[in-house]
Amino acid sequence: MTIPFSAIEAGQSFVSARVTVTETHIVLFAGLTGDFNPLHMDAEFTAGSDFGRRIAHGMLGHALSTGLRSPIDDWAIEAFLETRRRFVAPVFAGDTVHYQATVLEARPSRSREGAGIVRIGMSLRNQQGVVVQEGEDVLLVGGGVEGELA
Amino acid sequence: MTIPFSAIEAGQSFVSARVTVTETHIVLFAGLTGDFNPLHMDAEFTAGSDFGRRIAHGMLGHALSTGLRSPIDDWAIEAFLETRRRFVAPVFAGDTVHYQATVLEARPSRSREGAGIVRIGMSLRNQQGVVVQEGEDVLLVGGGVEGELA
Amino acid sequence: MTIPFSAIEAGQSFVSARVTVTETHIVLFAGLTGDFNPLHMDAEFTAGSDFGRRIAHGMLGHALSTGLRSPIDDWAIEAFLETRRRFVAPVFAGDTVHYQATVLEARPSRSREGAGIVRIGMSLRNQQGVVVQEGEDVLLVGGGVEGELA
Amino acid sequence: MTIPFSAIEAGQSFVSARVTVTETHIVLFAGLTGDFNPLHMDAEFTAGSDFGRRIAHGMLGHALSTGLRSPIDDWAIEAFLETRRRFVAPVFAGDTVHYQATVLEARPSRSREGAGIVRIGMSLRNQQGVVVQEGEDVLLVGGGVEGELA
Amino acid sequence: MTIPFSAIEAGQSFVSARVTVTETHIVLFAGLTGDFNPLHMDAEFTAGSDFGRRIAHGMLGHALSTGLRSPIDDWAIEAFLETRRRFVAPVFAGDTVHYQATVLEARPSRSREGAGIVRIGMSLRNQQGVVVQEGEDVLLVGGGVEGELA
Amino acid sequence: MTIPFSAIEAGQSFVSARVTVTETHIVLFAGLTGDFNPLHMDAEFTAGSDFGRRIAHGMLGHALSTGLRSPIDDWAIEAFLETRRRFVAPVFAGDTVHYQATVLEARPSRSREGAGIVRIGMSLRNQQGVVVQEGEDVLLVGGGVEGELA
Repeated sequence: MTIPFSAIEAGQSFVSARVTVTETHIVLFAGLTGDFNPLHMDAEFTAGSDFGRRIAHGMLGHALSTGLRSPIDDWAIEAFLETRRRFVAPVFAGDTVHYQATVLEARPSRSREGAGIVRIGMSLRNQQGVVVQEGEDVLLVGGGVEGELA
Repeated sequence: MTIPFSAIEAGQSFVSARVTVTETHIVLFAGLTGDFNPLHMDAEFTAGSDFGRRIAHGMLGHALSTGLRSPIDDWAIEAFLETRRRFVAPVFAGDTVHYQATVLEARPSRSREGAGIVRIGMSLRNQQGVVVQEGEDVLLVGGGVEGELA
Repeated sequence: MTIPFSAIEAGQSFVSARVTVTETHIVLFAGLTGDFNPLHMDAEFTAGSDFGRRIAHGMLGHALSTGLRSPIDDWAIEAFLETRRRFVAPVFAGDTVHYQATVLEARPSRSREGAGIVRIGMSLRNQQGVVVQEGEDVLLVGGGVEGELA
Repeated sequence: MTIPFSAIEAGQSFVSARVTVTETHIVLFAGLTGDFNPLHMDAEFTAGSDFGRRIAHGMLGHALSTGLRSPIDDWAIEAFLETRRRFVAPVFAGDTVHYQATVLEARPSRSREGAGIVRIGMSLRNQQGVVVQEGEDVLLVGGGVEGELA
Repeated sequence: MTIPFSAIEAGQSFVSARVTVTETHIVLFAGLTGDFNPLHMDAEFTAGSDFGRRIAHGMLGHALSTGLRSPIDDWAIEAFLETRRRFVAPVFAGDTVHYQATVLEARPSRSREGAGIVRIGMSLRNQQGVVVQEGEDVLLVGGGVEGELA
Repeated sequence: MTIPFSAIEAGQSFVSARVTVTETHIVLFAGLTGDFNPLHMDAEFTAGSDFGRRIAHGMLGHALSTGLRSPIDDWAIEAFLETRRRFVAPVFAGDTVHYQATVLEARPSRSREGAGIVRIGMSLRNQQGVVVQEGEDVLLVGGGVEGELA
């Protein structure tokens, strides 16, 4: 059940699944990227900071938001073109996040019949509904079966 | 040796360390985020795609670019405020990437003496010098020791 | 879109997504379980074995088969009750596996109105269509929204 | 010290080493398999469930039970043929599990002199002695040195 | 900014960054090395031990001490020649460690002009300043740019 | 079957199990420790080095040598007291290593009846028998059951 570009229109909105961010996520993300900033990895440092304890990398929240399941996963996505985020509030180990997304624009491709560019606005929220990140993602969505026949 | 905001100015540019992206990075990133898209995880699917083999998640390249060591790590960074990327070309397992960055703007904070907002333009490049991603990061940089005394 | 027990019946069949099993999967699975059998971890040993190279843990294939996405993920699954597998052929790093499943039995719960027990027969197959594992899984599926109102 | 099939007989029983299942195990297992079911990964969801908190994947307990060290590791195991489990009770992060196993049947191979098929009954138990899983594993055990000379 | 051997002399001392050792580190290190000793992995066993809870592998602390960032990272290190540690006190999940190091000896290489052998004495300390490990590392440091021209 | 100190004497020697070191081991070890030295992580850099390709961290080989199974695992080990290694030759991804160990000294404890200090000499070797590391480990071994009764 792959949804073609033609079925997507501005104003459609979606809510993703949730994931609880754990200390394991933070340690793995530091190891993968090499970002061992004391804000993420040094409990002594953060005990004296405004946050009071280690916080997740902003990019970890960003990365998670691109993997959380939602109806958007059923689109005939062919490429991830652009992403942007503003990091608004911290995510701590133990927080459970999900995103809310709305189609801002669905513009037919000039070069590929049936396909189009979809711009999504999104917010990542924690278990209290607080927006921790907000931004946009731009996707190339194909025409599905019809597009392939075209 | 922490570099305060006052020492940063537009036009300064930097080159990061490099990292070779491996199959391990891709499998770990899929597992961390839940993004098991066949472009990243299904060699049968990609054998028939334009790419011919699995590609790294765009967000993996993005995440790596925020962890690669560079002189920017010595800045008195207090917060990562914004990030954006355009995904221009694929990264394959075995590619070695680094980034090149230039300070686009360094604007004093209105509320915090000595601190300021730094906007960086960057490109992520592979071992052939091909730009695979380009974008901007916005950081809050503190005043260093003098700033703290102020 | 959660599918209640009432919509499931014997004979329905499904094909899962695929995943390419990598050396990373094998090393991570050994580390998680503590199973460092030379068949999986010692290339010198396996060079002289019938297989000629390291093979994935049978339990790794089994575990992967419970995570691969398929329409079964949309069922209102409440519990995983039983599983069994016969390990029929080896899985090597680089193989791409998926499963094919058929509902063998869908039996209403005696104690919970709307819910039922679903028994699935499955085979795990590699990129050549060779069956590498076969077995059964038994799930408790809820009544969905109607069931909750009952 | 490899124990040949000839030394194995029905009624022999064994106790494995123990392992404490952690949040790390759960996050890694989800990532490896792609099973991000909210029962395992969403603390908000499970706070309202019968369990009250995230539970480990049943297949994680199953996988761990095949890696925990026991005297069975000293057998001249040549292949893991079959496995089955019933998931009886939940495993939570922080639980410490081990298995108890008894040889149910040791049947000489018809085709390979000295080798045989061993069927083991097992239960996985937590730190309170509660059985959380029970099932059977079937192994092919070789003849050891004598068998190799035969 | 790579520091050549000629700039290193006995008596120089350094303090590293800190890292909080987590349960994740312990589980990953056990998986990587295969060391599932109950002191590290079995909370029931350690509840009855002198320590009262699981401790990190001594080798995990040792390994971390070779990765923690310090000014030594800026040396023109060409090879890690020798290492030794005495394990003096336990490291628990939640402890935050760093090392303090002093150059004990800086001896010019007999065979490579500009290069030399540097012997470092070090202690790994926890958040209370308690020495948990002490030892020495021996490095081969190059001559930097001048050395390369020589 | 736990071997007490009284059964250990100088001259006893042991051979461990083997493990094939993979790219996965190197990436995970870098991530765990934070050691992203280009010798381990940058294929462009190493293509121009004497080694010609990435090498495993010396400390990774060291860490693996403390986890590889051997008859020493059956000793009543109570503590790991000291370790030292000389890094003699590189380990590459794909190499299969094991260690050979000999008891150099077994000295009764002055304070604990039945227990003693055991000093082991070891060499880590690759699949060609080349010694890649050599060193010593010092262990505290208990008196086993008899010791506990004493």
